[in-house]
Amino acid sequence: MKWEDNVRKVIPYVPGEQPNKENMIKLNTNECPYPPTPNVKKAVEAFDTEKLRLYPDTNATPLADALSDYYHVDKKQIFIGVGSDDVLAIAFMTFFNSNKKILFPDITYSFYDVWAELYRIPYQVQPLDEEFKIRREDYMIPNGGVILANPNAPTGEQTDLATIEEIIQANQDVVVIIDEAYIDFGGESSLPFIEKYDNVLVVQTFSKSRAMAGLRVGYAFGSEKLIQYMNDVKFSFNSYTMNLPAQVFGAEAVKDDKYFRETVQKIVHTRERVKGELRELGFVFTDSMSNFIFATHPRCQAVELQNMLREKSIYVRHFTKERIDNYLRISIGTDAEMDTLLGELKAYIQSK
Amino acid sequence: MKWEDNVRKVIPYVPGEQPNKENMIKLNTNECPYPPTPNVKKAVEAFDTEKLRLYPDTNATPLADALSDYYHVDKKQIFIGVGSDDVLAIAFMTFFNSNKKILFPDITYSFYDVWAELYRIPYQVQPLDEEFKIRREDYMIPNGGVILANPNAPTGEQTDLATIEEIIQANQDVVVIIDEAYIDFGGESSLPFIEKYDNVLVVQTFSKSRAMAGLRVGYAFGSEKLIQYMNDVKFSFNSYTMNLPAQVFGAEAVKDDKYFRETVQKIVHTRERVKGELRELGFVFTDSMSNFIFATHPRCQAVELQNMLREKSIYVRHFTKERIDNYLRISIGTDAEMDTLLGELKAYIQSK
Repeated sequence: MKWEDNVRKVIPYVPGEQPNKENMIKLNTNECPYPPTPNVKKAVEAFDTEKLRLYPDTNATPLADALSDYYHVDKKQIFIGVGSDDVLAIAFMTFFNSNKKILFPDITYSFYDVWAELYRIPYQVQPLDEEFKIRREDYMIPNGGVILANPNAPTGEQTDLATIEEIIQANQDVVVIIDEAYIDFGGESSLPFIEKYDNVLVVQTFSKSRAMAGLRVGYAFGSEKLIQYMNDVKFSFNSYTMNLPAQVFGAEAVKDDKYFRETVQKIVHTRERVKGELRELGFVFTDSMSNFIFATHPRCQAVELQNMLREKSIYVRHFTKERIDNYLRISIGTDAEMDTLLGELKAYIQSK
Repeated sequence: MKWEDNVRKVIPYVPGEQPNKENMIKLNTNECPYPPTPNVKKAVEAFDTEKLRLYPDTNATPLADALSDYYHVDKKQIFIGVGSDDVLAIAFMTFFNSNKKILFPDITYSFYDVWAELYRIPYQVQPLDEEFKIRREDYMIPNGGVILANPNAPTGEQTDLATIEEIIQANQDVVVIIDEAYIDFGGESSLPFIEKYDNVLVVQTFSKSRAMAGLRVGYAFGSEKLIQYMNDVKFSFNSYTMNLPAQVFGAEAVKDDKYFRETVQKIVHTRERVKGELRELGFVFTDSMSNFIFATHPRCQAVELQNMLREKSIYVRHFTKERIDNYLRISIGTDAEMDTLLGELKAYIQSK
């Protein structure tokens, strides 16, 4: 078919499996094991469906106000999108238009190279070191932009702020994006850098710590200028991306700080306990500062463990990518879920 | 700032004014004057907020099922997006990659040239004739793709299916998009053409006839191949764009056919009545098959009328664009709202 000659052909991203079985234990996509704040339920009950007939606020004001209050950042320095994937994709499109290559680690969030391909942005991956840490000098060469996930995915590895700042300082002529999807689980945010450097974009999400993956809300902080450029591009393709439920229900998730902190604390507590128990079973892993643990076992293949767990309706994530194909990424679930997981792993490993 | 050299700079689309005043009459953005089906309210009441912690179904199955049932189209031939703007933007990106110019009318939905600029797609606008009708021969020249709104915006002018089919037949080597945002108000859909021609994409929306502008749902029908290409691109930048409320509440709007037909019928009835009354006041307009009337008055400037109405808290749309800068686009509201509008127009025109 001749019309197919001019189709943009991409290798589609394959999202993580989304099983939907009764009584399954779902530890494969880093969702929050706890529900969103009860205030969301109240907002749903009070929701006026008649308002759905009107276009939603293009500036997502209820969400922007809540984020502005919570993070003490001016609304003009906040960009809001349909999940952090939307925010990041728009940032790639807006900022990475150089002929020079953008830089990111070989092992990181698997969408970065997908967006680069989609928008035809030249890129170069910089190998993490043996311990899955970034090498700062790798990001101090001429480039078209830098993006780093911190903590990194799927390793959970945190880069300290001194290193991040050195990288920012070495890259004053491009935009540096810090993707903080997992920052609330113990990492230190680069948010303060947006006041000091006008080329730094810090991206966060409602999908993990705020238990709202189903609502699709992501956001970014940056200089007023940076955010304005992103909004100009966003408004060029869709002025109304944040639907009314996302704006109204989402704002509640930000406002209830007490619930947020308690939820995060529970997850961190479970994570640290599980680290100890996995270590006893012989697992080796990075010191994750996220809501997952990225682990390998010297005697059991990751795929073999994944399959064993799947038979028990426990789902964890495995990547076939080189260097990490013997690792499992295990999301932190409830304590009960993790106990079931640990029990199965223990039984299996001891039987070997 | 050197980083700004590589920023994608666009002329941002300026969405229609969204006033939010007590007791205003809002006839400027073609929203539905009636609320969505009461079944949406029931779905909101039954909504399980705990599910928000999980990622939503990437295939928006509840919506896809409802659309498939309603239109008798296989799910593989349906693409779903965040409003028809999202659907259209992805279609532009996916299908318009030729070096030849894409074609659309000079007067049409104001986002087409914005997307073309954003994605750097060469384009040529073809002037509508004196009566705001498309000239079929304008679309029978070598091109990189064709997009036609039918009924057209902001004119409301309907192109007959025979003409559409001739244009499709003359363009078998490119993708032809028919944007049917307003089709439910009396037009005849090009939907059947998707079975006959694998290069035709028919785009519709929940924002007008289904009273769901606030939910952001749009969709497209096409050959399985066409839809697959769009999904590949979509999944390359965001796998989870349709949030859970959009999927659950949206499905209800499609299922309640009786309510849908009644609502559309009421709007069409009001439109035809208002046409008669506007004619008596001396207005001249196309025979709109949409939920708005695009009218000019031989003795009163459009801007002057718009300002007069605004002072009475009645909002209508005016475009500064050449050829149409003396027209008002008036959305069809409730009968009471239209009576207030007509009363103000009558008083003003008679006083001149």
